[in-house]
Amino acid sequence: MSQVKASILPGFIELLPEEQVLFNHLKDTIEETYKKAGFYPLDTPVLEKKEVLLAKGGGETEKQVYELTKGKTDMAMRFDLTVPLARYVAQHYNDLSFPFRRYHIAKVYRGERNQRGRYREFYQCDIDIVGDEHLGLSNDAEVLFMIYQVFTALGLKDITIHVNHRKVLSGFFKALGMEDLTEVLRILDKYDKIGWEAVKDQLRDLGSTEDQEKKIYDFINLSGTNAEKLEALETLVEMNEDLRKGLDELREILDLAQAFGVNEGYLHLDLKIARGLDYYTGVVFETTLNGHEQIGSVCSGGRYDHLAKHYSKKDLPGVGMSIGLSRLFYQLQEENLIRLEKKGPCQALILPMEGFIKEAIGLSRDLREAGISAFVYGEQAKMKKMFKYADGIHVPYVLILGEEEVKNGSVSLRNMATGAQDQVPVDQVADAIN
Amino acid sequence: MSQVKASILPGFIELLPEEQVLFNHLKDTIEETYKKAGFYPLDTPVLEKKEVLLAKGGGETEKQVYELTKGKTDMAMRFDLTVPLARYVAQHYNDLSFPFRRYHIAKVYRGERNQRGRYREFYQCDIDIVGDEHLGLSNDAEVLFMIYQVFTALGLKDITIHVNHRKVLSGFFKALGMEDLTEVLRILDKYDKIGWEAVKDQLRDLGSTEDQEKKIYDFINLSGTNAEKLEALETLVEMNEDLRKGLDELREILDLAQAFGVNEGYLHLDLKIARGLDYYTGVVFETTLNGHEQIGSVCSGGRYDHLAKHYSKKDLPGVGMSIGLSRLFYQLQEENLIRLEKKGPCQALILPMEGFIKEAIGLSRDLREAGISAFVYGEQAKMKKMFKYADGIHVPYVLILGEEEVKNGSVSLRNMATGAQDQVPVDQVADAIN
Repeated sequence: MSQVKASILPGFIELLPEEQVLFNHLKDTIEETYKKAGFYPLDTPVLEKKEVLLAKGGGETEKQVYELTKGKTDMAMRFDLTVPLARYVAQHYNDLSFPFRRYHIAKVYRGERNQRGRYREFYQCDIDIVGDEHLGLSNDAEVLFMIYQVFTALGLKDITIHVNHRKVLSGFFKALGMEDLTEVLRILDKYDKIGWEAVKDQLRDLGSTEDQEKKIYDFINLSGTNAEKLEALETLVEMNEDLRKGLDELREILDLAQAFGVNEGYLHLDLKIARGLDYYTGVVFETTLNGHEQIGSVCSGGRYDHLAKHYSKKDLPGVGMSIGLSRLFYQLQEENLIRLEKKGPCQALILPMEGFIKEAIGLSRDLREAGISAFVYGEQAKMKKMFKYADGIHVPYVLILGEEEVKNGSVSLRNMATGAQDQVPVDQVADAIN
Repeated sequence: MSQVKASILPGFIELLPEEQVLFNHLKDTIEETYKKAGFYPLDTPVLEKKEVLLAKGGGETEKQVYELTKGKTDMAMRFDLTVPLARYVAQHYNDLSFPFRRYHIAKVYRGERNQRGRYREFYQCDIDIVGDEHLGLSNDAEVLFMIYQVFTALGLKDITIHVNHRKVLSGFFKALGMEDLTEVLRILDKYDKIGWEAVKDQLRDLGSTEDQEKKIYDFINLSGTNAEKLEALETLVEMNEDLRKGLDELREILDLAQAFGVNEGYLHLDLKIARGLDYYTGVVFETTLNGHEQIGSVCSGGRYDHLAKHYSKKDLPGVGMSIGLSRLFYQLQEENLIRLEKKGPCQALILPMEGFIKEAIGLSRDLREAGISAFVYGEQAKMKKMFKYADGIHVPYVLILGEEEVKNGSVSLRNMATGAQDQVPVDQVADAIN
């Protein structure tokens, strides 16, 4: 028979069984945290109408979208979970209660350049809260709290949440008389990578004066506590409506985030954070792992005032955040922040001697009923091969059942970590394992 | 701004929040059952190389496949979870321990004709056990047991598992001298729908004799216990190797399934079951819900001897089963076998009076720490609107926090089902809810 080489598409990923166990542990932990906070689960189609998914149009994203046509229908695979959310709340507006709180953990697709740790199919783990015409700032604070909660649950408590506000940025640059906000933010976004001198050169190309550059430098390098920074911002430039609104909101959000339980030390007012250019309208944030800042943000988000504007005349403001889990999983391993435990799918493997398969099956049934995941090795094989299998699936206990054991009403229980092996009465096996 | 109507593709489905809660409950129950039996989780890409996914080629399925091209790469979306499993075990053969036991719960894609309850994107919930060159029959029995377990866990214990064996079929028709097994099985498969007379006419077109037809009729209408049927089969036609092997295996599998704990009443030897034509080689089975047989099989599977033959020279026999959960979910609702409970995403909604948002946030933190999912309604709104929201998300308890409550160190606790409202000291709220 002609054969095809078994392989997956470049830029795609799949895990070996034990990696998958670890990945699922992280994914389940995130989901559990979202659920406990009272977010609804949501699940939308991977494939959507192309005209719907790309209603916003333009931009880098569109080039990366996987498109397909079947019959007369133009379709596209979702590239994030936010556009489907916008479409969902517009479509089901009458059936939803607002604020609508949902989480969505699912795969998205982007035909990005193939590089290590960047995948073309990857999991996003999102929460969003969407209001009807209005959405109180306690929701922004709660999203910051959720970041703190979820990373704590993942055992990654040592994080910094960098917080900024789009209106502080727009207000500041308006006060400076710098018109092209989009271009200025694009340049500032590179500050951490290229340094101040290069940023200054690019600003100069845009027509900045020395005075403007000095104020920009002071702005992005403000130091002190969040309160001190907010105070300094009051006097740095002439106040305008945007700046005033941004500063007031930031103060309230940081204050409420602490009421939720985020220690102030986790929240870092960072005036360099901008997060994309035409999407967010209020608070924006990124999250870094302390001591591992070079891997970039591991959880980002913010406030957008017109989520569903491409699908609805309704004003539906929202705030949310997203964790790119596939990439994070790769990074955590690279940074030695998680370790692949050799952990198999079950607690006990039962090895029957020839002729004792039924007794072994009965034992597996008893163990499962006692809450122990167990199964029977059902092949005729030499002991050596059986134990090789037990090693392969990293099972902590092996139970051997043969003529002697059945006669005694016992089972030979082997602790695979210590190598200790004892005969244990059948009715005590579950206790010995648990 | 120009707008696009918010809608999804025809034949696709998404659920409203409360339907999603119920759907996820079923999905999680299935996953939990699979995990407890020691199956590894598996997750493969939705998109695969077209040449890999369609290596088998031909057939109805290929026409339904969603294909796409990006750059020079021909891709296709998976149409089941079995072909990806075959590719996976061939590709990662050296890293796996056999028998390899995995579950996979994920969406698959088929451009089927649009009809009620048949979706173009739907969940499959599969388990398979794959051996290396050999796979003992206890695995076939365990898969039957898993069907029993999973439907019991779903609260659908009243099922019948219809069991047959491909070699019994091939042996029987060989003994009858009927050559075109594929065609005969295709006709028999319609028996339940079109009745005996129509089946007989079609067999006659194929060249059957009256004697052959009588034996076929007797064969598919054998009655009695499984043991009686097996016995009758021994004498119905002249024995051949296929028939002998099929009968022996069936006997052993049914016997071992009972050792696992499947009461014999659940297992029904049904000689009409064939399950596709070029895939299975041993035991095959379908599952019906008693009293709801007209909805067809809700869980099917069987034994295949050469899972990865398109990708590997290795002989990798397997046995498995699949639940089409999206369709089942639709059917269970249609048959009134599950009822949409009005169940929201959280246990307690906190309504702060103006000026008491921080106290409300503090209370939400305390409740979450006590294991109660709770959140704060963060909008300024009239009581009536707040309670409308509470109704909308079907929250069982509402907590009101205003000046009086804060002064008393209490909270007004309203049971939404009874309408009873009491002031409860803050430190007793969690107990009152739990």
